[in-house]
Amino acid sequence: MFKKQSRFKEDKYKHSYPKRAPCLHLIPLGGLGEVGRNMTLLEYKHQILIIDVGFRMPEENMPGIDYIIPNIEYVKKRKKDILGIVFTHGHYDHIGAVPYLIEHIFRKDLKLFASPLTKGIILKRQEEFSRQPKLNINEVRDGSKIKLGCFNIEFFKQNHNIPDNLGLFIETPVGNILHTSDFKFDKNPINDLPTNFKKLNQLGKRNILLLLSDSTGAEQEGSSLSEKEISENLEKIFKTAPGRVIAATFASLINRIQQMITISEKYKRKVCIEGYSMRTNIDISKILGYVKAKKGTFIKAKEIKNYPDSRVTVLCTGAQGETGAALMRIANRDHRFLKLKKNDTVVFSSSVIPGNERTVQIMKDEILRQGARVYHYKMMDIHAGGHAKKEELKKMLKIMKPKFFLPIHGQHSMLFAHAELAKEIGINEKNIIVAENGQVISLNKKNIFIEKKKVPSSYIMVDGLGVGDVGEIVLRDRQMLAKDGMFVIIAIVDRQTGRVKGSPDIISRGFVYLRESKGLLRDTRKRVIKIVNKATGSGRAVNWSYIKDELRNKIGGFLFSRTQRRPMILPVVIEV
Amino acid sequence: MFKKQSRFKEDKYKHSYPKRAPCLHLIPLGGLGEVGRNMTLLEYKHQILIIDVGFRMPEENMPGIDYIIPNIEYVKKRKKDILGIVFTHGHYDHIGAVPYLIEHIFRKDLKLFASPLTKGIILKRQEEFSRQPKLNINEVRDGSKIKLGCFNIEFFKQNHNIPDNLGLFIETPVGNILHTSDFKFDKNPINDLPTNFKKLNQLGKRNILLLLSDSTGAEQEGSSLSEKEISENLEKIFKTAPGRVIAATFASLINRIQQMITISEKYKRKVCIEGYSMRTNIDISKILGYVKAKKGTFIKAKEIKNYPDSRVTVLCTGAQGETGAALMRIANRDHRFLKLKKNDTVVFSSSVIPGNERTVQIMKDEILRQGARVYHYKMMDIHAGGHAKKEELKKMLKIMKPKFFLPIHGQHSMLFAHAELAKEIGINEKNIIVAENGQVISLNKKNIFIEKKKVPSSYIMVDGLGVGDVGEIVLRDRQMLAKDGMFVIIAIVDRQTGRVKGSPDIISRGFVYLRESKGLLRDTRKRVIKIVNKATGSGRAVNWSYIKDELRNKIGGFLFSRTQRRPMILPVVIEV
Repeated sequence: MFKKQSRFKEDKYKHSYPKRAPCLHLIPLGGLGEVGRNMTLLEYKHQILIIDVGFRMPEENMPGIDYIIPNIEYVKKRKKDILGIVFTHGHYDHIGAVPYLIEHIFRKDLKLFASPLTKGIILKRQEEFSRQPKLNINEVRDGSKIKLGCFNIEFFKQNHNIPDNLGLFIETPVGNILHTSDFKFDKNPINDLPTNFKKLNQLGKRNILLLLSDSTGAEQEGSSLSEKEISENLEKIFKTAPGRVIAATFASLINRIQQMITISEKYKRKVCIEGYSMRTNIDISKILGYVKAKKGTFIKAKEIKNYPDSRVTVLCTGAQGETGAALMRIANRDHRFLKLKKNDTVVFSSSVIPGNERTVQIMKDEILRQGARVYHYKMMDIHAGGHAKKEELKKMLKIMKPKFFLPIHGQHSMLFAHAELAKEIGINEKNIIVAENGQVISLNKKNIFIEKKKVPSSYIMVDGLGVGDVGEIVLRDRQMLAKDGMFVIIAIVDRQTGRVKGSPDIISRGFVYLRESKGLLRDTRKRVIKIVNKATGSGRAVNWSYIKDELRNKIGGFLFSRTQRRPMILPVVIEV
Repeated sequence: MFKKQSRFKEDKYKHSYPKRAPCLHLIPLGGLGEVGRNMTLLEYKHQILIIDVGFRMPEENMPGIDYIIPNIEYVKKRKKDILGIVFTHGHYDHIGAVPYLIEHIFRKDLKLFASPLTKGIILKRQEEFSRQPKLNINEVRDGSKIKLGCFNIEFFKQNHNIPDNLGLFIETPVGNILHTSDFKFDKNPINDLPTNFKKLNQLGKRNILLLLSDSTGAEQEGSSLSEKEISENLEKIFKTAPGRVIAATFASLINRIQQMITISEKYKRKVCIEGYSMRTNIDISKILGYVKAKKGTFIKAKEIKNYPDSRVTVLCTGAQGETGAALMRIANRDHRFLKLKKNDTVVFSSSVIPGNERTVQIMKDEILRQGARVYHYKMMDIHAGGHAKKEELKKMLKIMKPKFFLPIHGQHSMLFAHAELAKEIGINEKNIIVAENGQVISLNKKNIFIEKKKVPSSYIMVDGLGVGDVGEIVLRDRQMLAKDGMFVIIAIVDRQTGRVKGSPDIISRGFVYLRESKGLLRDTRKRVIKIVNKATGSGRAVNWSYIKDELRNKIGGFLFSRTQRRPMILPVVIEV
């Protein structure tokens, strides 16, 4: 198995520490064992280079949480050592945490590098947040070379499903590192140049010590589809659709959006863009020349009614069933200008992100019930992911021929699958590392190993304006409240008599429907009075926290026996 | 499009109602537009036949809910008209609601029919519930014929992934109805006879007026895999596994479990069964002869350590990542006798039920991190669903050549896909009905149509001991509590002065971590005092509900402005 399993090896290296050659440390703060939240540090003798600052979506058991961002405790303390940040591309899993984290590591002379589109997306997003430092981002392109401290970085174009995506070739004092960024090979992309294998081969000849390669597609057989195939299938749908085409995709899939604009123009359809994030991305892309449309192609939602159905395309967000997104509002008959009709064709040009299956299924059913026809990626190849699959990953490994290999970007099962591929093409098992967030991977010309000491990498949760203030305890309470609700007991104790005054108040939500549970409430009140009176009437000094514990335990037990539910019990005892 | 879209058609039929020939009414109470909760009524002149009484799993936005069961309001009032219940097979989506509903429709002379295994599973489950009526279930088999009022029912064997599954051929006063039950065609099943096409062809010649056919697989291309292929692939894994094989599957997949027992015996592995539901099912199946094992094959978990790893198989529940199920406990290092080791092979011989993807991914990652190898159905054909796919469904339609067709069992998208298949093989579009739960489908020799009036079919939720007591309001509260938690404000008002006494108490859970939010609490308390004092100090009679509304709105607004969260605000104002 791969190196991460071998604790004793770490020990061996630990003992040899004083003698070993100076190491470069690679510290993934996110992106390993998860999809998203990509952020990696390269550190050499007090010089730190940061690659990407992304976020990820929360798990299902994290109600109310908006995003999870990297834990930057380690690098926060080392602010002065940070040379700069390079961004690979403009997807939120690579840039999304910038507005939450940048203030903590910002210095006036902090150097930032991104391609024009990536820069545009980062800066546009900064506008939505208040009190952000003004970011000065240097533009880099395919072929750009920069020097940051001890690191020489060359940027090279990589195909993905957003334009302007850049891989990194980094010369470091211990050797060369190649970071693929997210990528796929595409010989026939739309709105983009095909993969430049000549360039990749040249890089591969430059003695790569360590390869960091995107693992998101490592469990999928074969090669990814070319965008051209997607385009041909989409065209078939647009061509034959009798009425409006309502096509949902990810707001960040700029090239796919361009395809659908071009096809719409070809079949004389006007295009209406619905959804804030899609509109924003198109605005940026139009300015930078990544989206091209004829004059008069775009129309507003309220203008749709002025055109025959067969002359209308709606491009919208909401393919994942996100509450409030355009397609969801249309499906739920909540959209002001758009109601589904019998001849509408709804196209899901997207995959379903794991965790969203049920929501998407319910939305799809709702669309079908309204008489529209539906096309999705399981029926026809109308979506391709942006990530290289097994055969492409092997090809990348063969081109780069690295001495050491560290799979990045993905769930553990993807990292392990990628490690297996590396083994298959002949990389020595000992030179392959499957690592975890927060581990410190030390690298020199001869060795790669994981240090025993980790840096903090726990989840930092964003909820509304709060960053990091929702932790384990708050989340556990939310889960408990969600499951069986809560039950507040308010007992007023007469100071003179030491007995409960009147009938205890009970407030409960999410537990049972109170109006239909009068018997249960009456029995509960009786028990509350008995418990409190017994405890206060003992003659000794009243122990209020004992009374609360008694109420919590005994009333909790009683409610469970009657309902088999465990609401959160919150006792309030007031002495007057 | 299919009939359900055409409101005017319903109207047309409504107007012709008085003249039309006597109709049979088919009323699906569950199973249409959803997977599970199967229950269908056939009614003819005050004679009601019930087919299946199943439950389904809750949606993701129903925290705390255990199951959803059919709404039987309609049939409850017609208790005396019920002729009997026939059960197609022993899966919980066909029998699971029995213990919750049977008491409401039970009569001493109510006739129940099921195959031996189905009967065994129903009765075993009844034992787990208290106060259940004693059920007298008549055994039926392939070829059995019964007469229930105006219905003559013949049972015929259908292959599925549980033994003893029966389709129904029902002679009714208006014509013959064929109900496929859940099914797939299998020429090489394990532990079961192959599909009897001769018999099916005979049935198909008997003038089928209406076909009700399983739609679960209607969106999947091709034909389902034979269990024999699965078995061969499983054998490869068992044969080459260097250590223990830990194989998880559904507890109800009796035939799959039998396969793995047989393979284990072939490779001299002892078998340990982990998981209550699997053990129960195996116990029943052993008694009835559906599971066969050599003497000494089964061992207990604590005995595993007495055998070499390569001589041990563990068959367990938990392939869906269910909390508390065997595999989850093993993965989380919570199992008393089973810890994962490096040479373990973990097999997921199951698909992932939509909605469980993330949980299963996280569990799989955890298993890989502990060094075991993992096989799942996306890597190798080690699972087949129990449902016919497109080609099989078309074949069934062709064999039965029904005049009318009603796709049953499945999400709307599956029903629509199945309706498309029927159209493809030449059934008149007008004779195909895509219906909804609670609709009354009327049928006579010449027509099939949906009545305008519906019967109740809303979700009845089971939560602990409560059946139907958790409704929309309680669920909405749970969702709200989950999202941003709750915030109880307790203000005590002095009757004499009309002013707040002391500092208001605040109890909050799931909102912010209170210990780190002292400033927020201080500011909130100040506002509470101001709001209450203003309202009580007006000189007029105190309007307590106004004060509570003020607190709810103003404190709610204040907390949102500071956190962008909306906890549930619960104000308590006590006058002393």
